[in-house]
Amino acid sequence: MLALTERPEVISFAGGLPAPELFDLDGIRASFDAVLGSPGVLQYSTSEGSPALREEVARRYTADGLETAASELIITTGSQQGLGLLATALIDPGDTILVEEPCYLAALQTFALAGARVVGIPYDDDGLDLDALDRMAAEHAPKFFYTVPTFQNPTGRTHGLGSRRRIAEIARQRGFRIIEDEPYRQLRYSGDPLPSLAAFAPDHVLSLGSFSKVIAPGLRIGWIRTTPDVRPTVTIAKQAADLHTSTIDQAAAAHYLVSGRGEPALDRIRSAYAERRDTMLDVLPSVLPAGSTWNRPDGGMFVWVRLPEGMDAAASLGAALAQDVAYVPGASFFSGPPDERTLRLSFTTYPPASIREGLSRLGTAWGAGG
Amino acid sequence: MLALTERPEVISFAGGLPAPELFDLDGIRASFDAVLGSPGVLQYSTSEGSPALREEVARRYTADGLETAASELIITTGSQQGLGLLATALIDPGDTILVEEPCYLAALQTFALAGARVVGIPYDDDGLDLDALDRMAAEHAPKFFYTVPTFQNPTGRTHGLGSRRRIAEIARQRGFRIIEDEPYRQLRYSGDPLPSLAAFAPDHVLSLGSFSKVIAPGLRIGWIRTTPDVRPTVTIAKQAADLHTSTIDQAAAAHYLVSGRGEPALDRIRSAYAERRDTMLDVLPSVLPAGSTWNRPDGGMFVWVRLPEGMDAAASLGAALAQDVAYVPGASFFSGPPDERTLRLSFTTYPPASIREGLSRLGTAWGAGG
Repeated sequence: MLALTERPEVISFAGGLPAPELFDLDGIRASFDAVLGSPGVLQYSTSEGSPALREEVARRYTADGLETAASELIITTGSQQGLGLLATALIDPGDTILVEEPCYLAALQTFALAGARVVGIPYDDDGLDLDALDRMAAEHAPKFFYTVPTFQNPTGRTHGLGSRRRIAEIARQRGFRIIEDEPYRQLRYSGDPLPSLAAFAPDHVLSLGSFSKVIAPGLRIGWIRTTPDVRPTVTIAKQAADLHTSTIDQAAAAHYLVSGRGEPALDRIRSAYAERRDTMLDVLPSVLPAGSTWNRPDGGMFVWVRLPEGMDAAASLGAALAQDVAYVPGASFFSGPPDERTLRLSFTTYPPASIREGLSRLGTAWGAGG
Repeated sequence: MLALTERPEVISFAGGLPAPELFDLDGIRASFDAVLGSPGVLQYSTSEGSPALREEVARRYTADGLETAASELIITTGSQQGLGLLATALIDPGDTILVEEPCYLAALQTFALAGARVVGIPYDDDGLDLDALDRMAAEHAPKFFYTVPTFQNPTGRTHGLGSRRRIAEIARQRGFRIIEDEPYRQLRYSGDPLPSLAAFAPDHVLSLGSFSKVIAPGLRIGWIRTTPDVRPTVTIAKQAADLHTSTIDQAAAAHYLVSGRGEPALDRIRSAYAERRDTMLDVLPSVLPAGSTWNRPDGGMFVWVRLPEGMDAAASLGAALAQDVAYVPGASFFSGPPDERTLRLSFTTYPPASIREGLSRLGTAWGAGG
């Protein structure tokens, strides 16, 4: 199936790829060139990460309203590594952890690999089922609750202020940690920014961040904002994992952040993605089968669609691929019984004209006109 | 103790750091600049690694006498990650693995973290105890034997041709794998190159390689030369670990290898390190206590010293540090009862004059004249 979606003629809404034409190639190249003027960037470094880079990331958290010291941060080789390190540090085989239902697929795989028992908490357009969270926490004494609070993958959903407060309160009362995964936080196109969960339960929240969506994924730079109690264990796990993240890439990222080129570049990315989201939302009503529903995310990369009663997103993919258009059926994002009517559409990879064309093909495939 | 060895006035033979002034900074910078001309290097990539880089590494193995296809290689974020991925893929808690005694410390830690029971096979100047390897393999049915066959860390020792043949034969007969870790293979200053263990038991040997010692450690690029039976498991473990190694660093490394600048740069490194080794070996007789012994490695970064009867390398470190010179006591490299008289000296970090000065301080510390 993957091979089919990767044919060049296919317009694929399946991937979660940033648009490469929006990368600030010149700015990033200039930063690599600048830091490669001194041999220190080619040497071994410390497992926690470059002090200059940690300082810059900490400064951004603090400016964003969450006071953070460089010493709280551990740089990782992308936030996938952050997930893996936390799984290693926190999960003993047989432990229960809680996730949103549906949930980011690679997180489900990482937790399964670590031997966790995964329990999903219902999450729909009305928000997370907070009573279920409280009940499941009481019942299972989970090690942690994993959440992508802002513009979630796969649904594009965001926990509102009230939910955030209450999730943090439940974690404090029931005594479990929260892993807050925030790769999309800065990709906001409408609505007001919301505080990090760490603001409401500082001792309970571990935050994951990444430059993959805001600078470039090829850099493989993410970080963990740690609490003091897990910091030593996570640092040892990081050292065992790969000694440290590329010294060169860390130095270039720190230089790029200081250069001031990052903000205008991110503004260009946000404007372009906002237009792509709007294009998708404009076209969807005319191409999806009657009775379909979908959300209007304030940011991120994804729209979550639910097909009408009687349709199955996986079974309907063949007809779409026959028209050279692809998406991801939602079933794989569920830890429990899946909602077979759901699917994920990414709106970031293509310019508006291709989004129109791809969605029109979807309409043709499903006989919804266009 | 680490804090003491890192004071700037200390000449430290303790580290295993390449000499930064020998890095080909201009060549590496030119390669980064060249590949950062196209946005593809900033995008997500495949977990197995860049096809161009795998092709170049495969070509080098084949030129070195070990026929290798790009598809056999998985690029890792340094060879520490390779070790970790193999530990994840091969070790179940309680499994026995065999190591050389003494052995590379980070490998011992990685195997312990994976829950392995580690059994050491005596390894001295006369070579590995092959009868013990055969006996322990029969007794413990180990998952694998881990070896640094060429210019070992910590001892600088190398398995000769006969040993290599016999180790491979025992692995085939007793049915265990070999993990062959080769970070120093290309740092040869005298003697003839020896074939990889994989040449003698192709189905049993997994080889780890790295650019850390021959291009630069800051790159964090290594690889695993896999056998077909473990390749899928290792690929999944790599994906879970960090999705993939930095696309930028991989592209730059591939470009650098093709540029032809790598060979002359490596020749300069080898010449400089050979002179440093010779300086150390020239000076050692006049500074070590009477009755000390040491080896004369054909390459790598380390000389292994054994102090005379009655001396303890850890207990003697304080006197050395008081003279602003440092080394690593050998005890930490043993999986079983340590030889307290041993210590490791690195000869790569400093130019000859500093090596003379540092060793002269050691002579002063230990009252051996100078």
